[in-house]
Amino acid sequence: MTEAEHVSFQPETDRNWEAFYKQDVSAKIPSFSRDGRIYDCIYAQQFNRPLLDELFTITDKLRDITKTVEGEDYVSSLLRNKRTMLWFTQPSTRTFLSFLNACQILGMNTSDIRDAKTSSEAKLETFYDTVRTFSSYADVLVMRHPEAGAAEKAAWTLKAGDRPIPVLNGGSGPDQHPTQALLDVYTLDRYLQRNMKRNGDQASAERGSGIDGKKIALVGDLKRGRTVRSLAYLMKNYWDVELTLIAPEQFKMESDIRGFLDKHGIPYHETDNFEEGIRDADAIYMTRVQDEHDATKGESAKVDYSGFGLKPKHMRMIKKSCIIMHPLPRRTEIDSEIDQDPRAVYWKQERNGMWVRAALMSYVFKKEGDILGYNPVKK
Amino acid sequence: MTEAEHVSFQPETDRNWEAFYKQDVSAKIPSFSRDGRIYDCIYAQQFNRPLLDELFTITDKLRDITKTVEGEDYVSSLLRNKRTMLWFTQPSTRTFLSFLNACQILGMNTSDIRDAKTSSEAKLETFYDTVRTFSSYADVLVMRHPEAGAAEKAAWTLKAGDRPIPVLNGGSGPDQHPTQALLDVYTLDRYLQRNMKRNGDQASAERGSGIDGKKIALVGDLKRGRTVRSLAYLMKNYWDVELTLIAPEQFKMESDIRGFLDKHGIPYHETDNFEEGIRDADAIYMTRVQDEHDATKGESAKVDYSGFGLKPKHMRMIKKSCIIMHPLPRRTEIDSEIDQDPRAVYWKQERNGMWVRAALMSYVFKKEGDILGYNPVKK
Amino acid sequence: MTEAEHVSFQPETDRNWEAFYKQDVSAKIPSFSRDGRIYDCIYAQQFNRPLLDELFTITDKLRDITKTVEGEDYVSSLLRNKRTMLWFTQPSTRTFLSFLNACQILGMNTSDIRDAKTSSEAKLETFYDTVRTFSSYADVLVMRHPEAGAAEKAAWTLKAGDRPIPVLNGGSGPDQHPTQALLDVYTLDRYLQRNMKRNGDQASAERGSGIDGKKIALVGDLKRGRTVRSLAYLMKNYWDVELTLIAPEQFKMESDIRGFLDKHGIPYHETDNFEEGIRDADAIYMTRVQDEHDATKGESAKVDYSGFGLKPKHMRMIKKSCIIMHPLPRRTEIDSEIDQDPRAVYWKQERNGMWVRAALMSYVFKKEGDILGYNPVKK
Repeated sequence: MTEAEHVSFQPETDRNWEAFYKQDVSAKIPSFSRDGRIYDCIYAQQFNRPLLDELFTITDKLRDITKTVEGEDYVSSLLRNKRTMLWFTQPSTRTFLSFLNACQILGMNTSDIRDAKTSSEAKLETFYDTVRTFSSYADVLVMRHPEAGAAEKAAWTLKAGDRPIPVLNGGSGPDQHPTQALLDVYTLDRYLQRNMKRNGDQASAERGSGIDGKKIALVGDLKRGRTVRSLAYLMKNYWDVELTLIAPEQFKMESDIRGFLDKHGIPYHETDNFEEGIRDADAIYMTRVQDEHDATKGESAKVDYSGFGLKPKHMRMIKKSCIIMHPLPRRTEIDSEIDQDPRAVYWKQERNGMWVRAALMSYVFKKEGDILGYNPVKK
Repeated sequence: MTEAEHVSFQPETDRNWEAFYKQDVSAKIPSFSRDGRIYDCIYAQQFNRPLLDELFTITDKLRDITKTVEGEDYVSSLLRNKRTMLWFTQPSTRTFLSFLNACQILGMNTSDIRDAKTSSEAKLETFYDTVRTFSSYADVLVMRHPEAGAAEKAAWTLKAGDRPIPVLNGGSGPDQHPTQALLDVYTLDRYLQRNMKRNGDQASAERGSGIDGKKIALVGDLKRGRTVRSLAYLMKNYWDVELTLIAPEQFKMESDIRGFLDKHGIPYHETDNFEEGIRDADAIYMTRVQDEHDATKGESAKVDYSGFGLKPKHMRMIKKSCIIMHPLPRRTEIDSEIDQDPRAVYWKQERNGMWVRAALMSYVFKKEGDILGYNPVKK
Repeated sequence: MTEAEHVSFQPETDRNWEAFYKQDVSAKIPSFSRDGRIYDCIYAQQFNRPLLDELFTITDKLRDITKTVEGEDYVSSLLRNKRTMLWFTQPSTRTFLSFLNACQILGMNTSDIRDAKTSSEAKLETFYDTVRTFSSYADVLVMRHPEAGAAEKAAWTLKAGDRPIPVLNGGSGPDQHPTQALLDVYTLDRYLQRNMKRNGDQASAERGSGIDGKKIALVGDLKRGRTVRSLAYLMKNYWDVELTLIAPEQFKMESDIRGFLDKHGIPYHETDNFEEGIRDADAIYMTRVQDEHDATKGESAKVDYSGFGLKPKHMRMIKKSCIIMHPLPRRTEIDSEIDQDPRAVYWKQERNGMWVRAALMSYVFKKEGDILGYNPVKK
């Protein structure tokens, strides 16, 4: 069900929405907070360093606790009486499954609508009526939608009604995918830190995040990948990060993000030379061509992408401590042989998504204290 | 999967079904009872006043109990080892989600089939074989089906076999939607009673149902809306109710319902003058055009429906204590501005559906005693 | 999503797969075992007599334990922190629902993908990447797939990665459906044994399986039915079984199975005379035409199948103790009137599927000791 299919009979309200929507993200962030905490998770920009650090600590603790049956039982009792609505009008295997399994880890009940047809009855109601209906039954709404601003509009419009619930953005069109950014930064942070420890650099490992002072290469379709966009936003939270933006001319990072990097003093270097760009990177973030966003059919197929894939030979060129990431699904950007290399962390990154989302969900329901303060009963 | 797609090789049984089906509802009701209780919930006519009162009391108690974590845990343990099959071959957001969440509140496990394609394997088996299969795995079947009589047939046919389970009708074609009627009457009752209390009319508030003695306006497509049909049936359970049937000529209430009202001595007044009809109503029940039931394409579009919508100006014409209801989804019948008016109770009505269905489900499994008798442990 | 739609960029790995795949099943079985136990359930041939006996004992005990609330609670706590992924890219009502409900009986959490479209995002990733993703979130994968060897490939390919999980084959194209075979053999065993007891033949009832020494008629499309293929494989585990293969000429059992029967010394007799074949059978296993596997459209419709259906008149010809089975769904192979005959056990067989799958799942997670050793607390 696309927004266009909705009959709009809320001209006044919709005008308000347009006025709200066109504001700068920083001006809109307070609308999605409550009592100084994130209420709706809509933009990557909502996460600052203390919150990132806190969420990652919760994530680690959740993984640690659930290593025992006793801990699993404790965690799965935390939100046992809460109900999540998963509304995915755009296909998504990973985001859907990781949110669903994150809810299950916390003991939540879930409902889902994954097929536009299932809700075709609702075709002629307004967007507000659709999301307001979810809030009649559920305590939190996780949503993916093909249109930019959809999750934002859902959260904004629910606040105008009598029963708002938190909205977690699972990807809204080409613009934002904040929980993907969260799992990416968590993965960067933890595996870069692990590397520092392995290399005996205990001091800097303890100094702060594994990300501080690192050189990160973003590779591929930087123009249309919401994943790399959201990730770039989060880099302002770390010290002395340098970005290498590696893309074919046609898929170069857009000026809005470059402007953001300039504004926050994050140095970056653009190149279309893959081998040169990855050579001294501490982390390489690979992405696929986002051809589902082609303006004209077959547009992407004309771009020569062959030079932007990671092959076994490259593993000898890059740093021994470099980590390889990918939001998945991949096509041919990373040769499957590389999966065996310990520097390849994309499968761990995928699983991290489930844990980070569980941490975020527990935070939304203010259960972080119960998690961080958990001590197994001595026997 | 429609009934027509089933190969019928049960001529004898099917003849029995036709003979059963064409009987009057009152003659069929005993077939869906057991030990003086509702076993299958098929028709609105199965609910009499004592049962309505009891179900609404259970509903209130469920809402009350679940205000504490202790109470939530108690309620979600009641049916923890029961499994519900949700079979929805016709799209439905609200009925599906509210039944699903009702099951979760009671701690039930659920399975669902919501897409005709998912069960296409079953295309060539009989209707009996399909529902008998559900009864192999589940303890109760909730179903929505595009054909009239489908839920009734499912319950009837299961009884001929060796493993009947209760069937709850979540809407069967154009004829019945008994749980919708239940939530509608619950909402009428509770909000009309609340109004009486607010207006200081404590005496009549305590006398009985909020519905007794009230004037209720039913507006819109009264010809094809199963919601208003089911609702009309239930009005016989209340004293001195007066109905105002407001519809364009083409969508007037059918003679079968008018006959029912006449037979039960329920006075009604028909009009196509919306503003006149709503003026002295205690409750206004709005409905949308049911164009999915058009006999010829575009038929409904030719009807002038513009005069049958509630606009802000009307809020000054109607009673101060009047409540506005709608089964949802709405199109343009109620201006969204009206949502803010305290007399608009349709969003509460939607949520009530979840609670009433939880109450019905607990009743089907004879857990009403556990709910009504619940007392939190003193600490 | 079919395998063909996947872009393969793993030539080396795929070549290994082809080499592995074309081996004899007996050579491949060790790859799907661990510590002398079944790890992945891929082929019917993985079950030997001691394991069949053990699984059936677990099944009986599960059914017995769950007759009390206390026992239900115990069983539903066994795998309460495990998560199952149900991946069904081919429609299936029975296998899906029985696996899902089996998981619920054991208290497991479940995720499912049942619609190829839901995962269309994944269209261009490799088969390995798709199943590896499931293993990022879930503890076990249950899958049905339209292609032969799909479950086998999933299990095999996961072992090459860093996070294998058990794979349970819920039907892979025309070749294998091992859990169907399991429930069939369980049903044969238990109901034939029950008959022996009823007939006062206590001695032979206690001697071993109800299957030993019996004559079993397999009827219908023996060429393309994976159900009867898998069942035939399991017969080697029993003593003195005789098979009667009843099929029209065009649907005769293929030579590979006949070779298997010859090799294991299982006597069989082929006929296209239905009435003659069923007359002295101890069990009759009916099947439908598998026209979904037609090589040319309408091919099956040309075969005269009318003589291969069980009608009420046949019930007087067959043994008084004979049991009638069918994997369901049925079309016209068994007249519905026969459902009332106590010898018709196909509906029980269907429900047995849920219990046998619960037993298998508990075995995969090594919980059989907890089940077999369960003793209700004395009050």
